[in-house]
Formats: sequence, structure tokens, C-alpha cells
Amino acid sequence: MNIMLKIQYDGTNFFGSQIQPAGRTVQGELESVLNQMYSARIVTVFSGRTDSGVHAREQVVNFHIPESKIPPEKIFHPLNSLLPNDILVISSEKADDDFNSRYSAKMRTYRYFFGREHNLFREKYSLICPYDIKIEELNTAAHILIGKKDFQSFCSSNAEVNNYICNVKKILFFKYNDEVVMEITADRYLQNMVRIIVSVFLEFNRGKISQNDILNILEKKDRRSAPKTISPKGLFLWKVDY
Amino acid sequence: MNIMLKIQYDGTNFFGSQIQPAGRTVQGELESVLNQMYSARIVTVFSGRTDSGVHAREQVVNFHIPESKIPPEKIFHPLNSLLPNDILVISSEKADDDFNSRYSAKMRTYRYFFGREHNLFREKYSLICPYDIKIEELNTAAHILIGKKDFQSFCSSNAEVNNYICNVKKILFFKYNDEVVMEITADRYLQNMVRIIVSVFLEFNRGKISQNDILNILEKKDRRSAPKTISPKGLFLWKVDY
Repeated sequence: MNIMLKIQYDGTNFFGSQIQPAGRTVQGELESVLNQMYSARIVTVFSGRTDSGVHAREQVVNFHIPESKIPPEKIFHPLNSLLPNDILVISSEKADDDFNSRYSAKMRTYRYFFGREHNLFREKYSLICPYDIKIEELNTAAHILIGKKDFQSFCSSNAEVNNYICNVKKILFFKYNDEVVMEITADRYLQNMVRIIVSVFLEFNRGKISQNDILNILEKKDRRSAPKTISPKGLFLWKVDY
Repeated sequence: MNIMLKIQYDGTNFFGSQIQPAGRTVQGELESVLNQMYSARIVTVFSGRTDSGVHAREQVVNFHIPESKIPPEKIFHPLNSLLPNDILVISSEKADDDFNSRYSAKMRTYRYFFGREHNLFREKYSLICPYDIKIEELNTAAHILIGKKDFQSFCSSNAEVNNYICNVKKILFFKYNDEVVMEITADRYLQNMVRIIVSVFLEFNRGKISQNDILNILEKKDRRSAPKTISPKGLFLWKVDY
């Protein structure tokens, strides 16, 4: 039986979502609990990997299990009782046999949160920007990155990728409570891509680079043309569309 | 010199704000750091005490120090470097000599947050209500508690109080992102008062009691007439007006 989960996690204390030989990961914790529950080796598929420190408000995961006594829509209860406090399964359901969290996904949306002042309750989830965020100007500049483009300049130079083409459907800055959010929707992302995009827009916001410079960064197809990757702490995988 | 701080704290791991012989408290942590900074016994005054588990988005504290080399508006920097992660000083300033956080306060505002669904990032800060919250009906019923009234039914029976009269200026339910908030402003509060008010309104919301029953609870002046005190986790001291 193919099971789909929607999960949340606080990325602060994980070395990213994807399982690796050493270091605590979301997939590692989840598979360890699933192996225990089903007394079998369960392999999970995530909609996409999130970097170390990045959070998820809605990550989608699937895995195949032997027929289960627990109805699929109730599997999240025992899972939550076994998982650590920084992972929460919000729902579980039976999925079509050919559903694959990663390959079936059409669009993925991330949000990056910026706070103006320190706030204890947002310290781990929002980046402090002690200057005005010019929402209108940013939304105008954001058009430069919309569409099917080569995002090599916005990809970690360590990444092993053949294809740098991503189709960015939307980039929108807006106010959210006392904070400002950048929401981005695309079919796929390269490693560190959202965080490098945020860095570029913060430089633009401070008047250090122009719209034309953003275009140049894009056209150079060279990671060194863009500023350094911003902190992961304001970044959330927000939702995945199928 | 009289110093005023605005502080935030996550109440989850405190036995309330007020210092006590045993158990970790906000005042205890703060005074321990101040004593260290000034090599003197510093006594702090809080605008009001918050119960065990209650959070503060803006608590106001004052204390007198010998003349200081650090400018008052910068005192919060060394304080934050010494305080634990669940207390954050958001500002420090010189106050008038006769300013007293508690006695100078005119109004105090609390917010109680209700979530509809589990959310990892709000688990410690919002109470899950798995049923509809009828905002309009609640705002109508809330009028019963507005004004200068005897709130003995809404006070912990353990509290040692002579005067149960509180002047409640405002009770308002409203939507806030995916959550619902009850905001209350009053000149003073009795022990557990906001949490007992929330309990009463939740019973009303579920149709278990009527507006007339709320009036009866108020008029009985007896703690036993009201339902049990709700969890502190959704409750924040939101601001203090002087």
C-alpha cells in the first residue's frame, strides 16, 4: 500500500531533510520510526530535499508498506507518538500506487520571512532586517526572474547538476503580520537557490545593485556573480502542488 | 538610576514570572544576571505576575541601579548575552525616578490564541480547538464582562485577595492568520482570571452554557460556578499601557 504523509518540521536541529551517513536528518528520524512500526525496511520519498536549517510547513512524503491493520488516515497518530518534537505528521492517507512525492509534484512553494525587530517567538523562523523592505520595488524587480530560465548563478557551486533550467511561476513580496514574506513558486529548485535569490533581492533592496545587475547575474550563469547565500532560518517549504 | 526594560519570554519552562524559593522563574533568571552585571543586589518590579506556562510578548520591568557606564538604552545588549534563550530583552531606557512598572501601569492587555489544526510552529503558543469558533456570538456575549465588576468567580480559589473588582475595558475575538485570538484589556487581573474567562467562553461557544449562564457565573462570586482553568499555553501578556 502506498501511503502519503504531510509533515512539518523545525529545521533548526537537522542536517537537512535527506538521510546521510552521519548527522541527524528528517528522513533518518522518520524512517527509523517507520522501520520500528512495520518491522521492515521502509524507504521514504520526499517531495524535495531541504537544506540544513530550513523548515517545512508542508513537506509531502510517500512510502510503500505491507498491508496495515491501522487505517491509512490514522497512521499519523502512532507516528507522532514515536517521532521527536521537531517533526509533526499532520495527515496520512492512502495514495495511488504510482504516486511519487518527488516525481508527481508539479509545483513547490517556499516562503522566506523577514522581521524588522527581534522577537523571541520568531527568532528561529525569521531573519532580522533592520532596514525598510521596499515591497513595491522588489515586486517589480522580481519579474526579472520569472519564467523558464537558467539559474546556474543561483545554485551552490558544490551541487552536482546537469540542468539548471527552472520554471519560476511567481515571486511575491508581501506584508504578513509584523513581518515581510517573499513567496516563490517554481517547478524545481537548485541547491541554495531560494536563499541566493533572497540575498540578491536584499542587496537590491539596500540599493547596492540595480535591476540591470540582477539581469547580469542571471545571464552570467556563474555562482560567483551573486552574493553569498543567506541564512536558512527564515525559509520554509510552504506547500507542494500535485 | 531607574531603568525600564521591555522583555519577552517563552513561559513554557518557567514556574511563572515571579521569583520563588524553588523553581525556575523569569524574575529569578533576570535578577541573577543583573546581580552579576552590577555586582550588587538588584530588585526588579514586573508590571504584573504571569502564571506558570504563560508567555509574554511585552512585559515591562523596572529596577534601580548605581550610576552605570553603559548608556541605559544599550543595557539590553549585555543582558541578552547573559540571559537564557527563553528570555529576550527588546529595549532598555532610563525611566523617571518615580516610575514603577507595577503601580504606574494603567492597562494591561493579554491575548489568547486558538488554532484549528495542529501546527508544529504554534504547538507551544496556541490551544487547539477542533470546532468552529463563533466570533460574532462570542463578541456579543463578551459584553457581559465589560466594565467595573466583581470577578471573584474568575479568580483561583487559592488566591489571597481582598478586592475582586476589575475594570475590563475590552474583550474582542478576531481572526489572526489561521488562528482566532481573544484580546482582553483591563486595569488589573486576578489569578488565573484570563484563563477562566477563556474557559467560560469556550463552553458558551460549544453551546454548553448560555449568555444568561455567564451572567449567573459572574453574579455568584464563587469560583466553583465557572468551569476549570484552561491551559496557559495559548496565553500571552501582550502589552502594558502607562
